[in-house]
Amino acid sequence: MGDQSFVSQKTRARVRGAITPIALGAGRVGLTPNALTVIGFLISVVAAATAAAQLWIPAAALVILGGSFDMLDGGLARAQNRVTRFGAFLDSTLDRWGEGAVYIGIVAGASAAGFVAGAVLAAAAAVCSFQVSYTRAKAESLKLHGEVGIAPRAERLVLLTIGLVAAGLDGGVAAGARGQLWLALGLGIIAVTASITAIQRTWHVHTQLRNEEQRAQ
Amino acid sequence: MGDQSFVSQKTRARVRGAITPIALGAGRVGLTPNALTVIGFLISVVAAATAAAQLWIPAAALVILGGSFDMLDGGLARAQNRVTRFGAFLDSTLDRWGEGAVYIGIVAGASAAGFVAGAVLAAAAAVCSFQVSYTRAKAESLKLHGEVGIAPRAERLVLLTIGLVAAGLDGGVAAGARGQLWLALGLGIIAVTASITAIQRTWHVHTQLRNEEQRAQ
Repeated sequence: MGDQSFVSQKTRARVRGAITPIALGAGRVGLTPNALTVIGFLISVVAAATAAAQLWIPAAALVILGGSFDMLDGGLARAQNRVTRFGAFLDSTLDRWGEGAVYIGIVAGASAAGFVAGAVLAAAAAVCSFQVSYTRAKAESLKLHGEVGIAPRAERLVLLTIGLVAAGLDGGVAAGARGQLWLALGLGIIAVTASITAIQRTWHVHTQLRNEEQRAQ
Repeated sequence: MGDQSFVSQKTRARVRGAITPIALGAGRVGLTPNALTVIGFLISVVAAATAAAQLWIPAAALVILGGSFDMLDGGLARAQNRVTRFGAFLDSTLDRWGEGAVYIGIVAGASAAGFVAGAVLAAAAAVCSFQVSYTRAKAESLKLHGEVGIAPRAERLVLLTIGLVAAGLDGGVAAGARGQLWLALGLGIIAVTASITAIQRTWHVHTQLRNEEQRAQ
């Protein structure tokens, strides 16, 4: 399903392998999978505040850290055999809150710097990213599959981090700074690829329903 | 379920009664439910562009018009007995795109006017509104109910329209204009009530899963 993604299955498996011992370590010091989910969300909130303060490189570091917790919680739940439906629900919804918070922070930082296009693209990246998650959840609520597409969460995280770091290294996003271009580029690519992913998922839903109908005839 | 909402069941029934003949009229001129869904979305995109241009009262009118189409499509589908799963999927996802587009437009308009708090609150209202829809879809993907809460779409539409109209009537959102306060208030209330709704839905999911477990014991 996820084989259209630009982060390969092999890379995913390698990251998962590297993360499992850390997840188990977190479990040994008494953290539950749901606690890791909440910590990941709180880190994203700090990342958002950091972006609002236009500290782009620290914000990128915190985005990556929050994203790592996002993988740890699932890893720990699987390793401890504690995969619960509420855990899955909390993980999915808090990931959306965390992702949304970061974009709100970027809107704040860009807007305060007078970088209107950056604020607009951050809001667009938030809306389009949400659609990726929403089309999948909606498809699954109709008992269909929705996990196809080129830009799920890991891809968006990579693009956002690159955009933030490049903006920070290239003078920030004040008027005339070249950093504006990098942040706009990162956010713009997220908005476009996320939109394509949401459309791919919509098409996938359409195909599944057509196939079901044909089988029913 | 929706009885905590401040738009009463009676009002909803009355609005639905008023809309059915219009929906049927749209059907007679050859429009399908899905065509109405797409038209509603396109109107929201125009509303977004209007908000970006800081034309707050026209934007409010277009938001209401787009929201009406949102009700017409379901009305026509029911009246014509053409309720399909793909229609439901398209309706839900395009409504999210339309709602998101309007907030992106407000971010653009507020940010261009130097109204940073307005841009941030618009992004927050978008993220929180999305959570309302996402928590429900995610709950339903786990075969649970998620339609509780104080602020579903109709409520958010009313709040947004009031905020936009008041901002337009009270001098717009340029520095020093009182309209800033109204727009911030409308968006802030949407963000808060939508967050409460999303939390209510999360709690409702938790309760349902606990009850299921207790029955299973």
